[in-house]
Amino acid sequence: MNTNDTPWNGAGRRIHMQEVGTRDGLQVEEAFVPTEEKIALVNALSQAGMAKIEVTAFVSPKAIPALRDAEVVLREIDRKPGVVYSALVPNVRGAERAIDARADELNLVMSASESHNLANLRMTREQSFAALSEVNALARQAGRAVNVSLSCVFGCPMEGDVPVATVLDWCARFVDDLGARGVTLCDTTGMAYPGQVAALTAAFRARWPSTEVTLHFHNTRGMGLANVLAAISAGADRFDASLGGIGGCPYAPGATGNVCSEEIVHALALMGYDTGVDLGRLIAASKRLPALIGHDIPSQIVKAGRRLDLHPVPADFPAIRERALARAA
Amino acid sequence: MNTNDTPWNGAGRRIHMQEVGTRDGLQVEEAFVPTEEKIALVNALSQAGMAKIEVTAFVSPKAIPALRDAEVVLREIDRKPGVVYSALVPNVRGAERAIDARADELNLVMSASESHNLANLRMTREQSFAALSEVNALARQAGRAVNVSLSCVFGCPMEGDVPVATVLDWCARFVDDLGARGVTLCDTTGMAYPGQVAALTAAFRARWPSTEVTLHFHNTRGMGLANVLAAISAGADRFDASLGGIGGCPYAPGATGNVCSEEIVHALALMGYDTGVDLGRLIAASKRLPALIGHDIPSQIVKAGRRLDLHPVPADFPAIRERALARAA
Repeated sequence: MNTNDTPWNGAGRRIHMQEVGTRDGLQVEEAFVPTEEKIALVNALSQAGMAKIEVTAFVSPKAIPALRDAEVVLREIDRKPGVVYSALVPNVRGAERAIDARADELNLVMSASESHNLANLRMTREQSFAALSEVNALARQAGRAVNVSLSCVFGCPMEGDVPVATVLDWCARFVDDLGARGVTLCDTTGMAYPGQVAALTAAFRARWPSTEVTLHFHNTRGMGLANVLAAISAGADRFDASLGGIGGCPYAPGATGNVCSEEIVHALALMGYDTGVDLGRLIAASKRLPALIGHDIPSQIVKAGRRLDLHPVPADFPAIRERALARAA
Repeated sequence: MNTNDTPWNGAGRRIHMQEVGTRDGLQVEEAFVPTEEKIALVNALSQAGMAKIEVTAFVSPKAIPALRDAEVVLREIDRKPGVVYSALVPNVRGAERAIDARADELNLVMSASESHNLANLRMTREQSFAALSEVNALARQAGRAVNVSLSCVFGCPMEGDVPVATVLDWCARFVDDLGARGVTLCDTTGMAYPGQVAALTAAFRARWPSTEVTLHFHNTRGMGLANVLAAISAGADRFDASLGGIGGCPYAPGATGNVCSEEIVHALALMGYDTGVDLGRLIAASKRLPALIGHDIPSQIVKAGRRLDLHPVPADFPAIRERALARAA
């Protein structure tokens, strides 16, 4: 392998980091993060240089009270030019609210697995597609971009492997039939592995070379970063990640959080990729999370620091050295 | 990139997995694991198919009481043909004990960083090398193989980056001058990143094509598996790992455990590498660890299961489906 053509050598290639912690993360928290704190968090993520931020979800406040302030948050954040402010919408009512609150992009969700779609959304996949088609029409009318997050494309925790042909068929319905700007291939429960990721990413890229494709990984089985690198090697340049590594899936036992934004940015920066993200600002934002959500976060970068955040020598180091040198004499 | 020539495609290549949990892991535990449990653990690891097992350390029982039963453990384990049973020895006294107890291989340790060597071993690097030269002579006389684990080759938590030339110079003194069979390049505090790993591995391989080289990673900053894959892409085929991900370094604040044996085996198997390890047996052994050491283990595979360990559908799934289908009618 030519060392200049490996995933370990970023060579300044642009990678777009897309934050999902404010939606995918906060929605599963017990604590209600105060509206002004959410706004401050989104603003900090904008300032840190995230390319896209999934700010919130326009869902029923009864179903997800943690995000009941979706309108206010989306209206009152500072809009940094170039950053895409996205919102998850499950249906037409949500789409109307998101459009009113000036979402740049509506993120639509369904699962590539029938069982997961039923368990998670209480609809068949066909019913979901029909509902999302209406949302899509509304977004188009309002001139807003549409992204589709397709869950379980790397496997379903109830069904097992989901055939690549099934995944590509659903992608085709959204991209070719509905004209979606982008598709997110979601590893909802951390079943993806690098060879599989490279193959599906390459298949998508070959069929839709100009459609935005995002990869969304969870670190459930320790393969998060390796999957990111495998996707990059197959042509992907957009990744969802969650500040502090927060988030999870209530319908997937054992699932852990999304890949951690600062871990991915830290690793990609060391490899010479251009994420456009100021890692110091990102870590500072992540360090504020435990106070907001009331518990520790998975982030190993917040725990251990950056690789060159050095530690002082032990207090007795001069004495150790002196004793050692005395033995040498 | 040719998809057949990527690190994501193992194509049946042999990777030797070397267990360090019984030494690197157990030595930092508060609990004394009973001798017969240690023996059973090593036997389980042999049966699971690990290529090498660092069974114990012949150190002062006062310094590391957790391993005070080194002789008995090494003498009483079942020796599976083909498996290398290794022991860490810090000095001539330890070497004599290890040779008496029939260690196949003596593992010698020093640091590529002067500060880390002083803080950890209370000697200058030159003093360590002189002491290890005596150990080497003794091992040679007794016909035992010698491996040298060189700490901090990817960075020192006190000094920062360690020059590649410095690392290779120390490797040369052990390989060329002392005739060591193998060198382990240790990322003692999790500072390694894939580009760096590929470069150092390639440099070692180019200079010593027939010397065993092992890579020893910690997952401190979430880059463990990516580093393994980068090393493989540069020609490495031996990796240290620790059952359950236990272990750490008391002189490295924030350091977390070694990469987890079952996580690495799980990932490599999915990519088509031949690790020779029976993952089911390995997971079974790992599940016994919490009872032995008295606390939870980092292993994400023990937590989440293998990727195709499926979960039942929710109890109300038939009702959900029925309601959904009724809506469709």
